[in-house]
Amino acid sequence: MTDIERMILERGRDLIRAAKRYAPGVAERINNAVFEMCMKDPHTKKQLFRFIDVLPNLKTDALMTQHLQEYLWNEKIQVPLSGLAKLASWLTPNPTARVVRMASGAMAKSFIPGASVEKAYKAIIQSGHKFTIDILGEKTTSETDAGTYMDAYLHALDYLSSEYGEGAVDEHGNPQINLSIKVSALYSRFDPLNTENSSSHVRNRLREIFRKAMEVGAAINIDVEHRQYKDLTYDIFKGLLEEDEFRTYGYAGIVVQAYLKDSETTLMNLINWTKRQKRSISIRLVKGAYWDHEVMLAQQNHWDIPVFTEKWETDANFEELTRILLKNAKYTHAAIATHNIRSLVHALVLKDKLGVDDAHFELQFLCGMANEIKKALIEQKVPFRVYTPVGELIPGMGYFVRRLLENSSNESFIRAFDTTADPAELLRMPEGNIKAQKGESVVEKNLGYMGQGKSPEEADTLFENFISCDFSTAVNRSRMSAALDDLEVMDSGLYINGEWIETTKRIESTNPSNRSEVLGKVGKAEKREVLHALESARKAYDSWKRVSARERAGYLEKAAVLMGERVYDLSALMVKEAGKNWREAYVDTAEAIDFLNFYAAEMKKLGDPVKTQELLGEDNFLSYRPKGVVAVISPWNFPLAILTGMTSAAIVTGNTTVIKPASESPLIAAELVQIFAEVGLPKGVLNYVPGSGAEVGNLLVESPLVDMIAFTGSRKVGLSIYEKMSRVKPGQKNLKTAIVELGGKNGLIVDSTADIDEAIPALLYSAFGYQGQKCSACSRVIVLNRIYDAFVAKLLESTRSLIQGDTSIPGVDVGPVISKRAYDTILGYIEKGKADGGKVLYEGSHQDTPGNYLAPTIIEVESENILAKEEIFGPVLSVLRVNDFSSAIAVLNSTDYALTGGLFSRTPSHIKQFIAEAGVGNRYINRGITGAVVERQPFGGFKMSGAGSKAGSTDYLKAFMYPITTTENTGRKGHIPGLDEFAR
Amino acid sequence: MTDIERMILERGRDLIRAAKRYAPGVAERINNAVFEMCMKDPHTKKQLFRFIDVLPNLKTDALMTQHLQEYLWNEKIQVPLSGLAKLASWLTPNPTARVVRMASGAMAKSFIPGASVEKAYKAIIQSGHKFTIDILGEKTTSETDAGTYMDAYLHALDYLSSEYGEGAVDEHGNPQINLSIKVSALYSRFDPLNTENSSSHVRNRLREIFRKAMEVGAAINIDVEHRQYKDLTYDIFKGLLEEDEFRTYGYAGIVVQAYLKDSETTLMNLINWTKRQKRSISIRLVKGAYWDHEVMLAQQNHWDIPVFTEKWETDANFEELTRILLKNAKYTHAAIATHNIRSLVHALVLKDKLGVDDAHFELQFLCGMANEIKKALIEQKVPFRVYTPVGELIPGMGYFVRRLLENSSNESFIRAFDTTADPAELLRMPEGNIKAQKGESVVEKNLGYMGQGKSPEEADTLFENFISCDFSTAVNRSRMSAALDDLEVMDSGLYINGEWIETTKRIESTNPSNRSEVLGKVGKAEKREVLHALESARKAYDSWKRVSARERAGYLEKAAVLMGERVYDLSALMVKEAGKNWREAYVDTAEAIDFLNFYAAEMKKLGDPVKTQELLGEDNFLSYRPKGVVAVISPWNFPLAILTGMTSAAIVTGNTTVIKPASESPLIAAELVQIFAEVGLPKGVLNYVPGSGAEVGNLLVESPLVDMIAFTGSRKVGLSIYEKMSRVKPGQKNLKTAIVELGGKNGLIVDSTADIDEAIPALLYSAFGYQGQKCSACSRVIVLNRIYDAFVAKLLESTRSLIQGDTSIPGVDVGPVISKRAYDTILGYIEKGKADGGKVLYEGSHQDTPGNYLAPTIIEVESENILAKEEIFGPVLSVLRVNDFSSAIAVLNSTDYALTGGLFSRTPSHIKQFIAEAGVGNRYINRGITGAVVERQPFGGFKMSGAGSKAGSTDYLKAFMYPITTTENTGRKGHIPGLDEFAR
Repeated sequence: MTDIERMILERGRDLIRAAKRYAPGVAERINNAVFEMCMKDPHTKKQLFRFIDVLPNLKTDALMTQHLQEYLWNEKIQVPLSGLAKLASWLTPNPTARVVRMASGAMAKSFIPGASVEKAYKAIIQSGHKFTIDILGEKTTSETDAGTYMDAYLHALDYLSSEYGEGAVDEHGNPQINLSIKVSALYSRFDPLNTENSSSHVRNRLREIFRKAMEVGAAINIDVEHRQYKDLTYDIFKGLLEEDEFRTYGYAGIVVQAYLKDSETTLMNLINWTKRQKRSISIRLVKGAYWDHEVMLAQQNHWDIPVFTEKWETDANFEELTRILLKNAKYTHAAIATHNIRSLVHALVLKDKLGVDDAHFELQFLCGMANEIKKALIEQKVPFRVYTPVGELIPGMGYFVRRLLENSSNESFIRAFDTTADPAELLRMPEGNIKAQKGESVVEKNLGYMGQGKSPEEADTLFENFISCDFSTAVNRSRMSAALDDLEVMDSGLYINGEWIETTKRIESTNPSNRSEVLGKVGKAEKREVLHALESARKAYDSWKRVSARERAGYLEKAAVLMGERVYDLSALMVKEAGKNWREAYVDTAEAIDFLNFYAAEMKKLGDPVKTQELLGEDNFLSYRPKGVVAVISPWNFPLAILTGMTSAAIVTGNTTVIKPASESPLIAAELVQIFAEVGLPKGVLNYVPGSGAEVGNLLVESPLVDMIAFTGSRKVGLSIYEKMSRVKPGQKNLKTAIVELGGKNGLIVDSTADIDEAIPALLYSAFGYQGQKCSACSRVIVLNRIYDAFVAKLLESTRSLIQGDTSIPGVDVGPVISKRAYDTILGYIEKGKADGGKVLYEGSHQDTPGNYLAPTIIEVESENILAKEEIFGPVLSVLRVNDFSSAIAVLNSTDYALTGGLFSRTPSHIKQFIAEAGVGNRYINRGITGAVVERQPFGGFKMSGAGSKAGSTDYLKAFMYPITTTENTGRKGHIPGLDEFAR
Repeated sequence: MTDIERMILERGRDLIRAAKRYAPGVAERINNAVFEMCMKDPHTKKQLFRFIDVLPNLKTDALMTQHLQEYLWNEKIQVPLSGLAKLASWLTPNPTARVVRMASGAMAKSFIPGASVEKAYKAIIQSGHKFTIDILGEKTTSETDAGTYMDAYLHALDYLSSEYGEGAVDEHGNPQINLSIKVSALYSRFDPLNTENSSSHVRNRLREIFRKAMEVGAAINIDVEHRQYKDLTYDIFKGLLEEDEFRTYGYAGIVVQAYLKDSETTLMNLINWTKRQKRSISIRLVKGAYWDHEVMLAQQNHWDIPVFTEKWETDANFEELTRILLKNAKYTHAAIATHNIRSLVHALVLKDKLGVDDAHFELQFLCGMANEIKKALIEQKVPFRVYTPVGELIPGMGYFVRRLLENSSNESFIRAFDTTADPAELLRMPEGNIKAQKGESVVEKNLGYMGQGKSPEEADTLFENFISCDFSTAVNRSRMSAALDDLEVMDSGLYINGEWIETTKRIESTNPSNRSEVLGKVGKAEKREVLHALESARKAYDSWKRVSARERAGYLEKAAVLMGERVYDLSALMVKEAGKNWREAYVDTAEAIDFLNFYAAEMKKLGDPVKTQELLGEDNFLSYRPKGVVAVISPWNFPLAILTGMTSAAIVTGNTTVIKPASESPLIAAELVQIFAEVGLPKGVLNYVPGSGAEVGNLLVESPLVDMIAFTGSRKVGLSIYEKMSRVKPGQKNLKTAIVELGGKNGLIVDSTADIDEAIPALLYSAFGYQGQKCSACSRVIVLNRIYDAFVAKLLESTRSLIQGDTSIPGVDVGPVISKRAYDTILGYIEKGKADGGKVLYEGSHQDTPGNYLAPTIIEVESENILAKEEIFGPVLSVLRVNDFSSAIAVLNSTDYALTGGLFSRTPSHIKQFIAEAGVGNRYINRGITGAVVERQPFGGFKMSGAGSKAGSTDYLKAFMYPITTTENTGRKGHIPGLDEFAR
């Protein structure tokens, strides 16, 4: 055992002994009872968390009792408060609700001691601890919110300096007044992609706070939040301090999160920056509070997990960072923030060993955590500060839940501040078991991360979604910028029978953000070329259908690789041609890649005949064969994804295709054709004939050479195709079938238990993302009366902060609509809606030059208003007020369409009812209603939204094929192969 | 050890020692080499058996080499004859083919010593053994065959008596001349259901043989074949001997098969009959030669396996039967036929112990089997006879393969006559291991018999086909007779909204076998009633869609139980109403029951939402919801099965239905409605409106209240429905989709390696079963030039033996066509075909009273003849001659239809090509092309045969539903349920 380990053991035993002398208070005992319940089983934990989460919304006893019933009693979960409830039954007519409210209030209060700075100050004074105050209110959904947040800090500085006096310092000369700030709360569109705006808005507000802090001699610490905000947060912090007026400010501080794999680099960069700047800052070392979130986000987006996934790794890294920090104590003030006895004792021992002065060192605990140890440490005169949140329960709920999570994590089964555990165990050096030390992460393995734990057979047909773009990384932003800069004017022909063909008539493609910008031209097909394309497809079919499923899948996989290599170029083209913002454009390309890989993987599976029954003497197999020639008619709104999906499904199943892209987006379609040409797809399998819907479309739909039509587009065109294709023509081989994906009039219900902070951004994105030009877009929000006014007020505030403009500018939320015609149509709808009695709640300024800039519009309507019925396909959101939940469902279901629909609610019975009764193809609960991901959310609806196919689903490919049964008598004169083995 | 066991061991050791002195001959060594190869691995065995099976058809060296290549060399199977082949390479230009032909000739000859009685007699004389001669030719496909077979026996008696002299006896006074006969070969329509005809035809022919045998003093033994023939065979045997002229015949004998579980009863019955008759017969005790076949048949039909499935059980039973037989030796001549040393020594010891006279006892071996032991036994003066088959290789192949099977079975790994094995092991008393003694059959378990080995979850959604009717059982025949006798005239209304409704207009249903027989009347719906039915269905939908999948499935399961209870009544009604023969009618009901049970099981599975991806913080599920109201329009040709299938699929998926049955078969439809009413299906879920297609059909198809159409019927009506339903009407909720199952023009290819004996009955049944009125019926046989003449000649002969008549008579093959109109249409087609150049090869006598009796017609046509193109839907078979296999496939694929198609071939590359290129929905290899079984052969085609749905498949139900995606964000403020467990 090393010296240091011996010292840690010694000092740690001492501390534990001291801590044991303090008995827990009432609140702590309630907390502990809840933590123990949570640790019993995951279901109880889940239900309890959910119940606590919704608590602030349960404003009446009836609501409280209902939710206790639905979350706990119905689930047979007994909360150990029933004794108390009985006791209280003579006090109040609704004892359970009362007791729960009291108990949860006590719990929350132990972590969040005051709803205002004034109240918190009283608690602080009472406790006698040093503090740093954190004003709760993380989710800032509007500039009003952001301003309020800034004002609260300014007020706190005013108030506290009036209490302490300006320039008050403690015994070590450090400021008495110490505040902690989350920068994301200082701007409502805080987003690393929205770099310039985020930086300037936050710096503007932070500047005022820093000025006042300098004025009153207060310390300001910047908290670090989600990993995606990290780089921008450090940039803002350093940038601000480098401003002249703050060069002399000595009490600024920032956080380093030890759970991040790159935290050592982060810390070294900070220290080096400080050295270069010849100044001192405070660095608070924490383990990190968003572990669940980071792991989830990484898994959902297929990113490398940025945090250590084993607890011991974070603990070990924390010690390493402590060492670095304390070695550089002269440039910094080191705040070691941990409740883990081993970690903090390690820091104390190291501090002594390195001779770090008390003025450059402190421990930090969160308010309400590990109180016994806190008391023992203070008694031992260790420099100590309590992180003290201030705020109401609703904005504080996120903070509160994170504390509960930390306290009820089953990780390692020993809570690091549990003084009843074996001291040697608590103080043991952090190290994993042998497997973990070899770098085999349990989390990654259990998540099946990157195909881990799959057999070779499974891996062969394994599908993984394309990795999402992390625009919080600067290099990714640069790539997109470069791709936009590199775009050249395109010039392209038709593609028929493996050859690019020139035409005299051309289609011109322009930028909806700036209609005078011509992006390129493609050929315009006429009857002769369409027939040529159809004959080529028919001819190619005879050989293409003989190519094995696996080989066909290979072409898609190769195309996916090329597309992946060109992801920024393709996305940039869509930014320009379709008016998509960066994220929307990237997601469009990613979805196209997903379709290629998913349909390839699925076809490899479907390519193997399946035995229908295990039978002696007879083999029976089900397999599939292609239908023939598929006409693909695609829209402009997902110009790459939808076209790629329909085309690749047709091709991989053994059909040949003639594709007619929308005239608004022929360039990106030509890029797809080019990719398939490059991967060597045999000639005639894919033929590309842009042209007019009336001419080219009709020729395709009515041709006897066509066996199937894959169409995504408007209801009007879709129904006409459906009708036309059903008439059998002379010479036609098969009854034509069709995939038709039409429009939507999608609604989102918000009830009184909705988490508004989550609902608002989800709604804004669903309604105004890509200017509402998605078939899945939310065009109706159906709000329950009880929450209506508050919700709508917040919604309007939030809408105001959306950034509108040219989509080539990063961070733009709302771009132009696709065309001047669309612009006029949508404005026309707004006028009709008004005439129909609609009340405009929000209307930005529309402007049709240089692009088709139509501002988001929010209109309050009755359920019979045209805006509540017809698809608009633009940034127009109708708001409907309903009295009860069943009416909300009825309104949701009341249109001709049935595509997507959503619900924000934390009432289990409402969620259940929604699942049972929402008559739409894609249902979303507590999230936005757009952005279906391939395989994850198979997409498509019914009624006038489509005929029930699901793009990105296992069954989608089956629509492009006929099922075939093959039966073979395997017996020969009574010899039955396999019977020998059966008999063994 | 008992006395007997000691004596067996002693005598057995003696015998083995004696046998070892004889060395095997050349043929035996070849045989042994082949047996050993077969025992090496199942694949080699299969390939070798298949190659040997096709050998007689390989008439040229090129064919021989090709098949060696395809069966063996390509499969990396080395036959240990290559040395010999090398040696022979200077003898012949095609040494391999030559050597294989020689070697296989030698093998066959060792089992089948002569192609004629004369040749066999020479071999017999040479060997000096006693014999019983079996003239090969089991498959009798025409009366010519049957006559030839009888004549061969008469000739054998003539010839042998001329050689031996009349009345020649051996040293024990038993006849020198001894023949064995298979009764099934004496009549081409031998079938237990065709009882009267089978019995009289066989007895007529047997009588002549017996007469001659009595005349010349020869012994005649009746072989017993498949279990299904057994009862009828014993009946014929006993019946004949009870005839006056044979009362004194003392040399008749019959077989008892010890592998049958009921063989002890059979033996006792025989002995008792003999006692009552006060005569003596010969009884040959065998183990049984059709084990594979019996097990296969039982499994395919879901019957109890009639044979012992463990070898030791048969062996033990053989000893028990030996005991019974020898105890009754005075009434019988006991022939113990086995090569198993233990079994035969056991018999010898018992014989001595019981003092059975040599005159009443003999051992029998098959020619070519266990030669060493045979020699030792004869040396020991044991009464001994050799079972000696006589015939060419093609008719003898079945016999030959059975011998190979016996010799290469891996069962117990020790061949019972292998004298190199441990004598104590060879002579051990037959008994199984403990598991086997408990009655746990390895075979049954491995077959998953009757749900064995399934988990409770699997069992819950387990589907098993309804047990086929075994019409070889007298009690089943009686049930059908009684059901026919009990049929009463029916009277029924419409069924709307849960009530039977009277109408003034009525539809009359008559018997196509006798048009003057009115079977009953049903109501005829008019517009008012149809609209009422539609509104009832729409209304019922709102509540029915809310009933759980499991509960809906329950109604189907209950209906299946009722239908099972009424299987004979329902089938009898179809015999009368649809003109189906007994088997066809029963299969129709059984298929209906299968649809109910299968769709119930499938829906229980589909009712559970399926997770699409394993994701942190978000649950994603795919589930299904019904479409709404389904109009079911069904045909008369499977009046119960198809109607039940379409209706139950619609109902179980949560839709409500309005059904319009064909006007030719409304009574059986009313029975189905009645069954659903009895199981308590909620009112309005099923509505029944018989009526005219033009009126009722159109109303349904064009109604905006209908969401889907399920139609099976003619191409003309189907295409018109497809077109009409695609036009969206005002008020219509969903885009209508349709299941359309239309006609077929199905072909069967016969190439030169086809097993003609199997192909002919399969073709006859496919073409003329139910008078060709199946969409799957074979209406074209495409025959390769090389085999054309022989095949067609045999086909015509066989057709002649089909029995035509009133289908209520059991055993009728071909009944009436459905209506006088159909009768006229079909005759019209025949005339057109003739006018088009068709050459009538076979034409029976047509007659349109009392029923619509249209005889099978066979016409040779060119591929452009109308009869090669259009669907006729009657008993008309076109024959097409082609020059090569690719042309055969081209002809097969040349019609507008793509429903079923078949191939008879034993050439692997042809089978492969057929599977790759036959453009039909259901492909059948080496079997008939009709009779698809639910789940086993999902049924349906494409081109003008349908839109690609597969009735009886897993995916069928999905066509009646919309897929729905449900996405739920499960996180709450960073708490991700399940992440704890992932992290563990």
